[in-house]
Amino acid sequence: MFKVPDHQVAGHVAGVGKLGPLVDDSGRFYKPLQDGKRGTEEVSFYESFTSNTKIPENIRKFFPIFYGTKIMKASTGTEHPHIVLQDLVSSRVSPSVMDIKIGSRTWAPEATEAYITKCLKKDRESTSVSVGYRLSGLRVFINDESGFYKPERDIMRKAGPDDVKLFLMKFVSSNPESEPDCSLAGSVYGGLNGILSQLLELKAWFEDQTMYHFYACSLLFMFEKGSALKGATTNAQVKLIDFAHVTEGKGVIDHNFLGGLCSLIKFISDIIPDKNHHENGQIEPQTAD
Amino acid sequence: MFKVPDHQVAGHVAGVGKLGPLVDDSGRFYKPLQDGKRGTEEVSFYESFTSNTKIPENIRKFFPIFYGTKIMKASTGTEHPHIVLQDLVSSRVSPSVMDIKIGSRTWAPEATEAYITKCLKKDRESTSVSVGYRLSGLRVFINDESGFYKPERDIMRKAGPDDVKLFLMKFVSSNPESEPDCSLAGSVYGGLNGILSQLLELKAWFEDQTMYHFYACSLLFMFEKGSALKGATTNAQVKLIDFAHVTEGKGVIDHNFLGGLCSLIKFISDIIPDKNHHENGQIEPQTAD
Repeated sequence: MFKVPDHQVAGHVAGVGKLGPLVDDSGRFYKPLQDGKRGTEEVSFYESFTSNTKIPENIRKFFPIFYGTKIMKASTGTEHPHIVLQDLVSSRVSPSVMDIKIGSRTWAPEATEAYITKCLKKDRESTSVSVGYRLSGLRVFINDESGFYKPERDIMRKAGPDDVKLFLMKFVSSNPESEPDCSLAGSVYGGLNGILSQLLELKAWFEDQTMYHFYACSLLFMFEKGSALKGATTNAQVKLIDFAHVTEGKGVIDHNFLGGLCSLIKFISDIIPDKNHHENGQIEPQTAD
Repeated sequence: MFKVPDHQVAGHVAGVGKLGPLVDDSGRFYKPLQDGKRGTEEVSFYESFTSNTKIPENIRKFFPIFYGTKIMKASTGTEHPHIVLQDLVSSRVSPSVMDIKIGSRTWAPEATEAYITKCLKKDRESTSVSVGYRLSGLRVFINDESGFYKPERDIMRKAGPDDVKLFLMKFVSSNPESEPDCSLAGSVYGGLNGILSQLLELKAWFEDQTMYHFYACSLLFMFEKGSALKGATTNAQVKLIDFAHVTEGKGVIDHNFLGGLCSLIKFISDIIPDKNHHENGQIEPQTAD
């Protein structure tokens, strides 16, 4: 009934003796509770968010549906508590997926000295400090024969600002293994229902909301190149995931997340060849300038 | 001919044997070049910015006019190089002034380890990390009899998020020494030419510009309560100052400055009692909720 998810791009992967997420065939995603405070704080966030009547409906759609927690046999074979969530990719065929950790700072002001030191090192070594976010995972569908392009974690980790720009272009290119042609930029990033439009919707909320600060949280981009090649829409979608380090906003906006989000919006805007055209979600080959 | 400026709210103050800025009676401000790289980098920034044809005219007005450098007798009595700038307050009568250092991080990624450690400590001890900016100076005109309200530097330094909110309210209150009434909020922060409107203009530029990153830079708010009390406008103005730590943007927006700016915009929006009214720049007593 439970299996290891096919399309995971970041985080721990379930394996023999290794704890990782599981999915079932009814569209649910089972995320093992992390050790100590992280696990309980992620559950607290989902509980708070789910019952929070101040979340606008257009914003709720960016978050996975939360179905509670469940103690169940983990991928390691032992009993372990899991967070039960909506499986974001179960209904998709060969989705291309990108995981982007947002914020130039992945630590909350209240974190311990040891944790801050550890995070700051990673933030400085990656593009978090310079660009305001870093890539945590990438998986781009090429075609049925070749399968997926999936750069090694180490390559992602060492990416500089220009590499990040290149990966964002590869994500919407017909052949991510060679020079990016950005042929899907108009239909995935652009358009009325495209990723840029969704990011702008999120941005408007982040300019105003002072309830939560989303440290070390990721934006997940997903789309289906397969359907696009068959003339259907790419069904591009943005979701927020990973809430183990969310803190209370205490009346202050999440300037750390918002700054990173604005930086990502700028990169993506620059990739869309002509923002006034290609708004129909169909493929029209484009070359980025 | 040269004298110590009356309205300085932050930074080194010129005195016997102490280097500090001077002004003359023709509206120029002489800022002693800081030691080492800082001084030369501030000059480099002014030179680059002044000759940069990509700066829109509506943005140029937020920066002091740069008149070059000049070796002259400093406040210490010895010869010292100075940056010659427009004196931002020379034409004003009893201006209220606030200096706000923008950004949750006051260090550039390229800074030395020792400098980063020093800045990070200050950023964490102040509201920079939590709120995205910190108050560096405040001076609020009360009336001709009482003069100015000017909290001690130490009080500013120890301010938490709620204190920052309170100082932003005191800045536009009839009596900053008691419970803030925010009677000037509509005419100073609000209105078509008010501070909020100017900040939104700056924000639009920061969402797009990738030329400069403004670390440890300040926004200066100025207005004249005296004129407002006599029925004239408050002449509220926003300026950017202190460019010793500006670095090249290298194609990335200044997400650190932008995040802090958005946080400030949110605080100020919340103080303006009803953003749809009081747009005429006149005083109408208001109580903040």
